[in-house]
Amino acid sequence: MAKRKPHPSIAYTNLKSRFKNIGRLEAIAEIISRDFLTTMPEGAYEGRLDQISYLHRRIHDDIVSPEAQIHLEEAQEHMASYPNLWDEWDSANLKGMVKLYKTHAILDHDTMEESARIANEGRRIHRECLKNNDWEMAQAHLERVVKHVRKTAKKKAKFRNSATLYEALIQDYSPGVKLNELWSWFNHLNTELKKIMPLVIERQKSRKPIVSLAGGYSKEGQMWLNRSLLELLGFDYDRGGLYETGHSPVEGGTPDDTRLVIKNVDTKNFLDSMKSALHEGGHGLYIQGLPTKGGLSYQPVSFDLGTTMHESQALLVEMILGRTHEFFEFLAPRLEGLFHTVRDPSLTAANLYRIKTQVQPSLDRKRADELTYFFHIFLRFQIECDLIEGKMEVADIPAYWTEWMHDNLGVMPQNHMEGVMQDVHWFVGKFGYFQAYTLGHMVAAQLFDTLQQDIPDIFSRIRNGDFKPITKWLNRHIHSKGSIKPMDELLKDVTGFTPSPDFLISHIENRYLGE
Amino acid sequence: MAKRKPHPSIAYTNLKSRFKNIGRLEAIAEIISRDFLTTMPEGAYEGRLDQISYLHRRIHDDIVSPEAQIHLEEAQEHMASYPNLWDEWDSANLKGMVKLYKTHAILDHDTMEESARIANEGRRIHRECLKNNDWEMAQAHLERVVKHVRKTAKKKAKFRNSATLYEALIQDYSPGVKLNELWSWFNHLNTELKKIMPLVIERQKSRKPIVSLAGGYSKEGQMWLNRSLLELLGFDYDRGGLYETGHSPVEGGTPDDTRLVIKNVDTKNFLDSMKSALHEGGHGLYIQGLPTKGGLSYQPVSFDLGTTMHESQALLVEMILGRTHEFFEFLAPRLEGLFHTVRDPSLTAANLYRIKTQVQPSLDRKRADELTYFFHIFLRFQIECDLIEGKMEVADIPAYWTEWMHDNLGVMPQNHMEGVMQDVHWFVGKFGYFQAYTLGHMVAAQLFDTLQQDIPDIFSRIRNGDFKPITKWLNRHIHSKGSIKPMDELLKDVTGFTPSPDFLISHIENRYLGE
Repeated sequence: MAKRKPHPSIAYTNLKSRFKNIGRLEAIAEIISRDFLTTMPEGAYEGRLDQISYLHRRIHDDIVSPEAQIHLEEAQEHMASYPNLWDEWDSANLKGMVKLYKTHAILDHDTMEESARIANEGRRIHRECLKNNDWEMAQAHLERVVKHVRKTAKKKAKFRNSATLYEALIQDYSPGVKLNELWSWFNHLNTELKKIMPLVIERQKSRKPIVSLAGGYSKEGQMWLNRSLLELLGFDYDRGGLYETGHSPVEGGTPDDTRLVIKNVDTKNFLDSMKSALHEGGHGLYIQGLPTKGGLSYQPVSFDLGTTMHESQALLVEMILGRTHEFFEFLAPRLEGLFHTVRDPSLTAANLYRIKTQVQPSLDRKRADELTYFFHIFLRFQIECDLIEGKMEVADIPAYWTEWMHDNLGVMPQNHMEGVMQDVHWFVGKFGYFQAYTLGHMVAAQLFDTLQQDIPDIFSRIRNGDFKPITKWLNRHIHSKGSIKPMDELLKDVTGFTPSPDFLISHIENRYLGE
Repeated sequence: MAKRKPHPSIAYTNLKSRFKNIGRLEAIAEIISRDFLTTMPEGAYEGRLDQISYLHRRIHDDIVSPEAQIHLEEAQEHMASYPNLWDEWDSANLKGMVKLYKTHAILDHDTMEESARIANEGRRIHRECLKNNDWEMAQAHLERVVKHVRKTAKKKAKFRNSATLYEALIQDYSPGVKLNELWSWFNHLNTELKKIMPLVIERQKSRKPIVSLAGGYSKEGQMWLNRSLLELLGFDYDRGGLYETGHSPVEGGTPDDTRLVIKNVDTKNFLDSMKSALHEGGHGLYIQGLPTKGGLSYQPVSFDLGTTMHESQALLVEMILGRTHEFFEFLAPRLEGLFHTVRDPSLTAANLYRIKTQVQPSLDRKRADELTYFFHIFLRFQIECDLIEGKMEVADIPAYWTEWMHDNLGVMPQNHMEGVMQDVHWFVGKFGYFQAYTLGHMVAAQLFDTLQQDIPDIFSRIRNGDFKPITKWLNRHIHSKGSIKPMDELLKDVTGFTPSPDFLISHIENRYLGE
């Protein structure tokens, strides 16, 4: 994009400058939070938490300043009076500004500060709870979070005209998605996948048995592999990197500083760190591909389309492309060289494919297979629905969880670490997030469908490690578009359809029941 | 210190809250800058530079806001009317606030932003110049910096009633020190050390020859040693750490987050990384020991006393304690275990002492011995004096440098990397800083003199690795005092004298010509 001329609306030009400054502070908050979560010394905990919260308070104040309000009104009038002076980027940008302003204006800066505090300290509390299997501590914390989230949900629902409190929260992750749409998609998936699951399990029983991985895969070797795969995907290491950490992966970054962090590499199983690297890599490619040229840096129109689109990019790389047979055909011979093994029956393409496509109900969302993954989300989605609406309390979750897992997947957690405490999301206040994984999975499958039409030799390209055309396609159609259109419109432009669960169902049928 | 009651001056209470918030932003700037200098991906360079500069602009605006000015006036009136309601901490704190306000008020926020930009990008430019031995690039950059520094010096001199522009700059590093005092101290040192130097060199010629280090010292082993020495000194790893990096050491931090960074460990010479660790460790102990209890965190009275006192703490640990014979007696047997060598003649206490106390004129300030170190500073001090006053231009430095080194130390740089380009200070705008090394060395020797009286068995303690009483003493007398008094007053309280070069001269005579 060429350098853009100053816009004729002075109010809008002022706003662009304001949002540039806000974006600078946001980028700083991003780095500080990553430091907080990864390398900060333990003793800095309280002080840093306090600094981060304060920075978010300042950002909030900058967004909702009275001057910003006046400029927003003037710029909107200008756009209404001279629509031909507003191209699609500037129009979308102004809309994004208005939305950001309104989202912040309904929340006072104390609330913003508390949200930032919960988001940052929740991770640590989660770690503590898991370390000691301490449900009492978890419950106390979650009750505090739910109370805070219900309060903000009320404000958000009023301003957003949401059908329910929970629908209002979903907007933070999947803007524009209605709760009743979600229910109908998820109910459909539930019905179809429940039919497919036993067929797949039955069919997989007749396969040759899986050969377990032998273990002893050096950390250095795994990190080389993970970094190389991202390089083949087009990840730009001049503007980012891939690191490992002792705890949960850290997401986020900015287009010029996308440092991906995956959880500690396990020498027994290189597939786990690879999965994590591919997932975070998908996020990273989206971030690095956002539009920054022509003065768009830090402007709302240059932002990503939210969690659903973000997860779709991560899951497309990790779960869809990264579990094709062709991907393992590319991988297998290189693994022999990397790990110094020849004729290792566990490292054949066929065996690796079998490992990564085995369907088996389990307790752990993060390690769930591509098919049963949905059920983990559906459970959390239902709990969130009731919890936010006050139809369920935190204390009720464990019993509900256990029963639901038993009824739907036939497995039961033996402790809270295997159940309600496994995910960090609620601990950091992310209620309404989980649905974005399945919605993202749906979008990923939908994009993959079009990808196969646009790149007819996609599978032979994957077999050759020639991943860049895929990233290029994603960049052209999704990443470089920023927030120029809402997700459903963009998806319709690219695939011909608004979001639909049918693509995911077809994808799963093809992969697990095909041929 | 117990929790302090709210102060009766409401204006002052408001100011405390303002400075707390400013301190939070300063702490954030500290972390961001460290990230910028150490682990940030290269592609984030421009964006991050821009973010850091912007943050400093905001900090500046917060300090000089009209509201702050009103509160400062009210609080000062309150203190004048009710002096008995102001204890020494609050009085010193208010004075610190006024000083900070005035220092910022004379500089507009564009100037502050440019200073922050130079401070952060100068390191990189320095690295580039050194990599390519590019004096042309260095000269262009230094001319830009000097122009900027002269401009700010003019404003500072006017406000500070400084005798000269250069004296105004010195205040940033050694508050309260007069240029004519410095000249008289430095001239005295110059005269005395020029007498001592040939005697030491002559005497050392008759010693047994030094056995060179054998090399092959593992990085892990060295870092264990460095970390252990700091631990013995009382460095708190819960609130900090010691890391290595590919470029210049990074100073700074906050009391709860003191991450020290030393330059890459060299397997050929463990003494270099140890020297660097002890030096940064001395800085770190000062930072960690600053007063933070009782609501003093982020308040000006809790700040350190400036560069001179900071360098005194670093040099006391590195050059004075860390080069005693007793220190090497403690070290030697442990080195054998650490590096798996027995009866290695290079690792005896006597030989190590000889290595670290050998006096030999050289070109490299950072590797200079304790005696000739002064001459490196004196050269830079003289150049700065003339440069800032406009009696010398950047283009004139190399010739002056070469001639001066020849006349005073009998060595001549063969290229600019060995001469004018060796230090990063000028590249980042730190004119007036170098004198603080020698002044710090003077203060360190002066403190060491009192330390020996207060801890009569100090040398046997050092021989046993029992360093904590020393740190405790420093903490009680220096670190925990923050900025409650100006440096010369505090030094007089502790040692009985304001700064004097005689202690340094005696120390050098004792160590190099004694026994």
